[in-house]
Amino acid sequence: MLNISKRGQAMPASPIRKLVPYAEAAKKKGTKVYHLNIGQPDIETPKMVLDAVRHSDFKVLEYSHSAGNESYRKKLVGYYKSVGIDITSDQIIITTGGSEAILFGFMACLDAGDEVIIPEPFYANYNGFAVAAGVQVVPVTSHIENGFALPPIEAFEQKITPRTKAIVICNPNNPTGYLYSAAEMEQLKEIILKHNLFLFSDEAYREFCYDGTQVSAMHLKGVDEHVVIMDTISKRYSACGGRIGAFLTRNKSLYDAVMKFAQARLSPPSFAQIAGEAAIDLPADYFDTTKAEYQSRRDLLVQRLNAMEGVFCPNPGGAFYAIAKLPIDDADVFCQWLLEHFSHDNQTVMLAPATGFYGTPGLGKQEVRLAYVLNKGDINKAMDCLELALKQYPGRI
Amino acid sequence: MLNISKRGQAMPASPIRKLVPYAEAAKKKGTKVYHLNIGQPDIETPKMVLDAVRHSDFKVLEYSHSAGNESYRKKLVGYYKSVGIDITSDQIIITTGGSEAILFGFMACLDAGDEVIIPEPFYANYNGFAVAAGVQVVPVTSHIENGFALPPIEAFEQKITPRTKAIVICNPNNPTGYLYSAAEMEQLKEIILKHNLFLFSDEAYREFCYDGTQVSAMHLKGVDEHVVIMDTISKRYSACGGRIGAFLTRNKSLYDAVMKFAQARLSPPSFAQIAGEAAIDLPADYFDTTKAEYQSRRDLLVQRLNAMEGVFCPNPGGAFYAIAKLPIDDADVFCQWLLEHFSHDNQTVMLAPATGFYGTPGLGKQEVRLAYVLNKGDINKAMDCLELALKQYPGRI
Repeated sequence: MLNISKRGQAMPASPIRKLVPYAEAAKKKGTKVYHLNIGQPDIETPKMVLDAVRHSDFKVLEYSHSAGNESYRKKLVGYYKSVGIDITSDQIIITTGGSEAILFGFMACLDAGDEVIIPEPFYANYNGFAVAAGVQVVPVTSHIENGFALPPIEAFEQKITPRTKAIVICNPNNPTGYLYSAAEMEQLKEIILKHNLFLFSDEAYREFCYDGTQVSAMHLKGVDEHVVIMDTISKRYSACGGRIGAFLTRNKSLYDAVMKFAQARLSPPSFAQIAGEAAIDLPADYFDTTKAEYQSRRDLLVQRLNAMEGVFCPNPGGAFYAIAKLPIDDADVFCQWLLEHFSHDNQTVMLAPATGFYGTPGLGKQEVRLAYVLNKGDINKAMDCLELALKQYPGRI
Repeated sequence: MLNISKRGQAMPASPIRKLVPYAEAAKKKGTKVYHLNIGQPDIETPKMVLDAVRHSDFKVLEYSHSAGNESYRKKLVGYYKSVGIDITSDQIIITTGGSEAILFGFMACLDAGDEVIIPEPFYANYNGFAVAAGVQVVPVTSHIENGFALPPIEAFEQKITPRTKAIVICNPNNPTGYLYSAAEMEQLKEIILKHNLFLFSDEAYREFCYDGTQVSAMHLKGVDEHVVIMDTISKRYSACGGRIGAFLTRNKSLYDAVMKFAQARLSPPSFAQIAGEAAIDLPADYFDTTKAEYQSRRDLLVQRLNAMEGVFCPNPGGAFYAIAKLPIDDADVFCQWLLEHFSHDNQTVMLAPATGFYGTPGLGKQEVRLAYVLNKGDINKAMDCLELALKQYPGRI
């Protein structure tokens, strides 16, 4: 008998994608499924971004520099300056999506058995990268009652051990939509300085803040050696399939270590680097328009949810996710039931059970994550389905 | 003091890319550098492959399926059939380059501390993926005197311990160009069955065999559970920058485990999947033309090398690499000297010291790897440089 590795066995299935077979079965029956389960926006990728690739005229699809094209990194310096981040082109490594930036951070900063503290609920794939790196995820719980604000310092300090090496935040947050305040960012700074930790800040949704502006981890003073930004163009320009992200650090020895991981995989994808570079030249009002669209979707979604009996959804300050508490027995059962046993006018809705976003077993059983990545007409229809489904669901409590 | 991980410190710098700063300095002085150090072909990517991307008309650059587009995987079934490999679309996972396929294999089959045996000299980045996965590379030495043939069974068996989980081969081989015979493949089959090991077969250069045809690991009978193919379109279609590869296995539980790693990083790059899918429709004579070009370059390179006094270069049967033994004291010093201190008509040549391809310290000190990825005019000029350099080099022995 030939066994796969313990690591391969421990690797979690994606909670966002595990219901996919039920959605496929529903579609085969002719049911229209509204996908609020996954952060794949319906927003069109800007034409000039796609055209930059379509009009490229090279003859050989070559490897790029392992850190990404120098021209792209130099233009990114300007982009980051526009969001108040001072960084040089040799402090940026272009990665294959934000995913690879996260993996590189775990690999280069933590050894097998080391611990990383993450406020839960958190982006589920952090679990996967942690298993790949042999790292232990230690959750610190945030709560729906206060909109998933950063847990107090004491909650972090209770979790810190000699093996703790880093804290991961996602700001604004996936899956909660929470936007950390300046005071909360200062609180994080205090913890990482006191306990000598890395701060990994996933800032994929930087531009999508509706009630205030983002305080980047790189806006914090005096923590240059500690801070890593994991970034991506996926959500910013609706370019998820490009698989272009970035790893940013001012810590030279960390940068050099990550470059060795980058060299091992040779280079990030060449086509989408062209797209990413072109995106920096988008007109200044691009984000205004996109943000206004997401904000109006958020307003609609949150209003519809809170109008349903027994449903509570805090108003998320950023990103394009919300977590709602539903009057149900079990979110996993309910989300599967929506696909297997429910339809309204031949339509249903796909949601992500929040259980997959918590590290602590048993939490999130009454919560679901909704991504407001569909247009308002579709969101309304999806909410019609959800409202009716909650009345019919046998496990309603 | 904030330390990077031990893993980050142990990560090897790419021996292929570490001389890059010296090459850049030479170019700044106005010296033309012939790059025989890296497998970046000058062969044009087929126009229809690039055009497929340029003429694509989607509006949203979406995530693909984590295993890659189904349409692409289905077409790949036909491609693999054409090279004698029976495989289904749900035994294929599209990866971000062959690099990711290798990493996935290490991650899903081996745990930290497990051992993988690799005939040396071997593709240096296997070291990097092994460090990332916490896996120990155990080299078994092949020798330039017999053209780097597969070491005898006994040499493998001496290296096998209870922690040995897999053997990696690259066939035809990078860096040696050696093409394993049917008898050697049967020998490998015997070892993996007897000791219950995985066989990872890197078949990036499958089409480029000049003195016979490749026996794929998936041509072997009775080892379906054991065999993994790591594949890539990089060299096949001169599409290195696309970052599209494939992980193939008929072992269902291994496939399922690798799918979880694939889901964690969401999807492979979308643009280049279009390119890869289009490439399958290239006319049948595409490889004839490309192979003939590489074969004529090989013939020229090997003839020029063996005509130099004190140089020995076995004739490689495939891929586009050769290893030559030179009358020098130290290949690392020599390769750096070529860039720093030598020029002929304002030209020099960049080679890869073979030391970086050996796992055993001290081996390969008189050997260099040459990639015949340049046209014959450039190869001739590069050989003129090398011939003269060997006469002038102070460390000649």
